[in-house]
Amino acid sequence: MTAPVPRIAFVMGDPAGISNELAARLLADPAMTADCATLVIGDARILALGEKLAGKTVSPTPVAAAAAAPDAAGAIGLLDLGHGDPAAIRPAEASAAGGAFALRNFRTGLELARDGLADAVFFTPFNKYALKLGGNTYTDEIQFAADVLRAKDPHAEFNILGDLWNCRVTSHIPLKDVSAAITVPSILQALTLADRCLRDAGLARPRIAVAALNPHAGDNGNFGREEIDVIAPAVEQAKTRQLAVEGPFPSDTVYLRARRGDFDAVLSMFHDQGQIAMKLMGFERGVTLLGGLPVPICTPAHGTAYDIAGKGVANDGAAREAFKLAKKMGASVRRRRG
Amino acid sequence: MTAPVPRIAFVMGDPAGISNELAARLLADPAMTADCATLVIGDARILALGEKLAGKTVSPTPVAAAAAAPDAAGAIGLLDLGHGDPAAIRPAEASAAGGAFALRNFRTGLELARDGLADAVFFTPFNKYALKLGGNTYTDEIQFAADVLRAKDPHAEFNILGDLWNCRVTSHIPLKDVSAAITVPSILQALTLADRCLRDAGLARPRIAVAALNPHAGDNGNFGREEIDVIAPAVEQAKTRQLAVEGPFPSDTVYLRARRGDFDAVLSMFHDQGQIAMKLMGFERGVTLLGGLPVPICTPAHGTAYDIAGKGVANDGAAREAFKLAKKMGASVRRRRG
Repeated sequence: MTAPVPRIAFVMGDPAGISNELAARLLADPAMTADCATLVIGDARILALGEKLAGKTVSPTPVAAAAAAPDAAGAIGLLDLGHGDPAAIRPAEASAAGGAFALRNFRTGLELARDGLADAVFFTPFNKYALKLGGNTYTDEIQFAADVLRAKDPHAEFNILGDLWNCRVTSHIPLKDVSAAITVPSILQALTLADRCLRDAGLARPRIAVAALNPHAGDNGNFGREEIDVIAPAVEQAKTRQLAVEGPFPSDTVYLRARRGDFDAVLSMFHDQGQIAMKLMGFERGVTLLGGLPVPICTPAHGTAYDIAGKGVANDGAAREAFKLAKKMGASVRRRRG
Repeated sequence: MTAPVPRIAFVMGDPAGISNELAARLLADPAMTADCATLVIGDARILALGEKLAGKTVSPTPVAAAAAAPDAAGAIGLLDLGHGDPAAIRPAEASAAGGAFALRNFRTGLELARDGLADAVFFTPFNKYALKLGGNTYTDEIQFAADVLRAKDPHAEFNILGDLWNCRVTSHIPLKDVSAAITVPSILQALTLADRCLRDAGLARPRIAVAALNPHAGDNGNFGREEIDVIAPAVEQAKTRQLAVEGPFPSDTVYLRARRGDFDAVLSMFHDQGQIAMKLMGFERGVTLLGGLPVPICTPAHGTAYDIAGKGVANDGAAREAFKLAKKMGASVRRRRG
């Protein structure tokens, strides 16, 4: 008997951009779908638009209800919600119809995961403005997902480029409030979460570098004491928990070291510390992971690319990486579920 | 009658690293020295070590006193202070002798500039630890230089990589104190200084981008109000002074735009914001400028490279860029001096 494969909820994103085309490119490639069971959530008519653009044929098996999601390797089901009227979608235009389409697909995929019928959620890009027009009241996807999944554990966004992961202790808060939010528990929580997600992605012993907060890592306390009073003690505690953690390192060189392969992940203290680095290294080709939820949620880091919508020239590299991560981490979830 | 050429005080740096070799490589190249008057400050014996390593001959004209510094295009004088005993210098080792050598050369170059005999100072790399062993009590070169030059005006360090300049409103202070240090006057002062230095370097109308402080530039005040209350008003005031300033822009994308050429300079709000970006873009190949002093002080961004000292394999690219900048900005100083 072979091990069960991960079941991926494949959520169709904003229909006015390149999402349909990306969906068709991935779903038509057996190298993507052979080692998982895929349930596409959307509308056959919208998928057909993507197939035409991509010049590929997908031929999914219609699935009447989520409970009938496929479970066999290589199977591709389609849960056609019948809500994607191509006539209501204009390419390259954020619309209520498009946002509502993506939002309902996403909610459905999350509900599948919540009910134990999907081990990972993958989605093609959303458009934030369309989501809002379509009824979304959340400012970011992770809180929406956590609520639908009824998640209790700590969760966070990860940014992944190639083999390098980045996560952060604080995110959307004023810079002046960062110091107060950097505590031993908040750092330990972020490190523990990062370690767990990296292990779920297949790393046996993830090497995590912790960035400092102050210039020159505080220069022995001359330019700030958080490194001495908070970050270093948190790193020491993480080590006693057997995490392969090092730091704090000056933030203007830690990414150079990470880029050359010294670490698998960097923990930033605040949003732009990591985002400046990741975006300069080419994060638009990377993957966003919402981690720490009952299932991993993966999507390409780039957006809907309205500027090339409908042209059939979308690069599916980042979407492929996101889908592969969903499979790897979904397999860990499936194993835990037994 | 031809216009007077810039007079460059060419300061020999730490003798245990690649500084001598870099000096010989630059001084032996007429493309470097033809359009300026150069006064090398150091010791003929140390320069001879560099000539041997570089496989180049310099043949400077001995100058008995600083007041006899050359003034003609292509002239290379040597003010031999007789204080660099090769027997006291061990390659790849920071020493009091090496630090004192570099420090006295630097002080002498600055005194020349102060007395109106040099229009720019260029130095090959120093070693901070050796400087300290050699009697330096300053934590950074700019304060030392400002004191020797008796400078009163605002001055700051600039980091330059190719055509992209970076400067910052705050530098070696704790991150938690940055918000309070970001004021309309401090931003305006930095912008005015940057504009002046860029013009001295030959840009007719420097385009300066101002980085935001908070994630997503504060997201309309949701994650911090400094953009609304302080940075945007400072940018508006700078515009009324005819500066080509734009922003504030989210700091995680402004460097992408700057890298592709949208701006000549970025003004960072704090140290690591700019340093993360510049180092990832390859700042070890760049130039450090101490700007706003009576004369520009230029040096390659990299250090003494003890690991390749004495091997004759030093890359002189950054040193060449630093020397060229000293000439360009020195020419502006000379024109002002008349």
